[in-house]
Amino acid sequence: MAALSRLLRISFGQCDPAGIVYYPNYFDMFNTSTEWMVCDALAVHPRDLMNRYGIFGLPIVDARNTYHRPSRNGDQVRIDSRVTEIGRSSFRVEHRLFIENGDLGVEGFEVRVWAGIDPANPAAIKGIPIPVAVRKHLLP
Amino acid sequence: MAALSRLLRISFGQCDPAGIVYYPNYFDMFNTSTEWMVCDALAVHPRDLMNRYGIFGLPIVDARNTYHRPSRNGDQVRIDSRVTEIGRSSFRVEHRLFIENGDLGVEGFEVRVWAGIDPANPAAIKGIPIPVAVRKHLLP
Amino acid sequence: MAALSRLLRISFGQCDPAGIVYYPNYFDMFNTSTEWMVCDALAVHPRDLMNRYGIFGLPIVDARNTYHRPSRNGDQVRIDSRVTEIGRSSFRVEHRLFIENGDLGVEGFEVRVWAGIDPANPAAIKGIPIPVAVRKHLLP
Amino acid sequence: MAALSRLLRISFGQCDPAGIVYYPNYFDMFNTSTEWMVCDALAVHPRDLMNRYGIFGLPIVDARNTYHRPSRNGDQVRIDSRVTEIGRSSFRVEHRLFIENGDLGVEGFEVRVWAGIDPANPAAIKGIPIPVAVRKHLLP
Repeated sequence: MAALSRLLRISFGQCDPAGIVYYPNYFDMFNTSTEWMVCDALAVHPRDLMNRYGIFGLPIVDARNTYHRPSRNGDQVRIDSRVTEIGRSSFRVEHRLFIENGDLGVEGFEVRVWAGIDPANPAAIKGIPIPVAVRKHLLP
Repeated sequence: MAALSRLLRISFGQCDPAGIVYYPNYFDMFNTSTEWMVCDALAVHPRDLMNRYGIFGLPIVDARNTYHRPSRNGDQVRIDSRVTEIGRSSFRVEHRLFIENGDLGVEGFEVRVWAGIDPANPAAIKGIPIPVAVRKHLLP
Repeated sequence: MAALSRLLRISFGQCDPAGIVYYPNYFDMFNTSTEWMVCDALAVHPRDLMNRYGIFGLPIVDARNTYHRPSRNGDQVRIDSRVTEIGRSSFRVEHRLFIENGDLGVEGFEVRVWAGIDPANPAAIKGIPIPVAVRKHLLP
Repeated sequence: MAALSRLLRISFGQCDPAGIVYYPNYFDMFNTSTEWMVCDALAVHPRDLMNRYGIFGLPIVDARNTYHRPSRNGDQVRIDSRVTEIGRSSFRVEHRLFIENGDLGVEGFEVRVWAGIDPANPAAIKGIPIPVAVRKHLLP
């Protein structure tokens, strides 16, 4: 199962006038975790992912976070991420962010599509089957 | 019922290497819609919201977006937002973003808390009752 | 001469724990002004700029802002931008941001390159001559 | 002399439709370097900086970057930062970002103010003398 745990330190620029992390920034942190987790699992450089598999990318179709405790500037946090479900052309990733005292700060999930381009409608993102060689690295 | 519809143009800086809006940025756009909608409904300047009501802010406890079609640099989009539920100390806002051809691009909701500070635990965000004078402007 | 003046309202998400606009965000606002100014002057949609002229984009090689007064959440600001110099393959844009009381908040400049790709070194950005048909719209 | 060298990996979300780091994001990276460098030098947690010294913060009055080579998604970069000048109430920080092959990508400087609040004009940021105990840690 693809999984990643990483540590990072919250920066001033990620926080808002309330002095806590501006909540959209958790989706940004989680996006980075997913990208690095998937690229590590597939042993591909992030820049080569699209070309190697001939895909448009891994666009999100559904993302949800629930917020338990705020993080603040300078906090050391840990983000644990893993693939928890895989379908024909999409997969689900779950994330949990822990604040330095061990408290759960945020938990969330996202559903991503293994996406090609529909030549008949380039504005639409169209899921294509996840290759077998990829599936076994994401969720055996 | 508090509601807001606003038009904006997607900028280059909101888009990612796939050429579409980086999905966390929709939460940022929706946050702005909520703030302006609430401040308009309460006839308060955004900077005075916290002081007038003696609150910490309106932190998010739950946020979810589903993505139907991507927006791209230069797209004119419309965001429709409204308060759809109100509880003792929280309320729910729903957002829909339409691309310029009228297609639904993103829909989402968020649950926000009318938050004081718990002096016994400043790291926690604690809901306090939404004043009657506020409730009637958010969801009569 | 290409020029653009636009009004915008500072959002919560653009501000930092000091309650003022996080200073990198001014470069983001100015980038948007430049892109829309150039695309308006050339009558091209932002998404078509690169394809129409066969360029990589308009990357920045130099950017500087000086900050006179901070902007805060909810401020109405005006950004005035114009092309002030044009060279063989680069041009200079100057920006000034005024706060709602008329005070000058920020002034800055940027130097942008009309950039092709050097096939011998794709990691490098290489200036190419600005077409005559473009020059006359940027700084006659 | 306060100095900091740190390594980081460029993320997808920091890049733009041209596939390179969106240039305002370098100012964000440099801001984080400055904050951590100053807080390390003063042995203060980032959240305690303002309270310990009774200041509004370290707002920027001047910031400039020159861009030599772009960074891309997944690049490992190194940012070297140091205080190079110190005045009565301001100091200058210089940053250089190196791409993983050793090429200089970006270099820049910023001038920051040791800022109090002018009670007569809260909208203005007013420099106050940098304490001797601080000066010796920034630029002995």
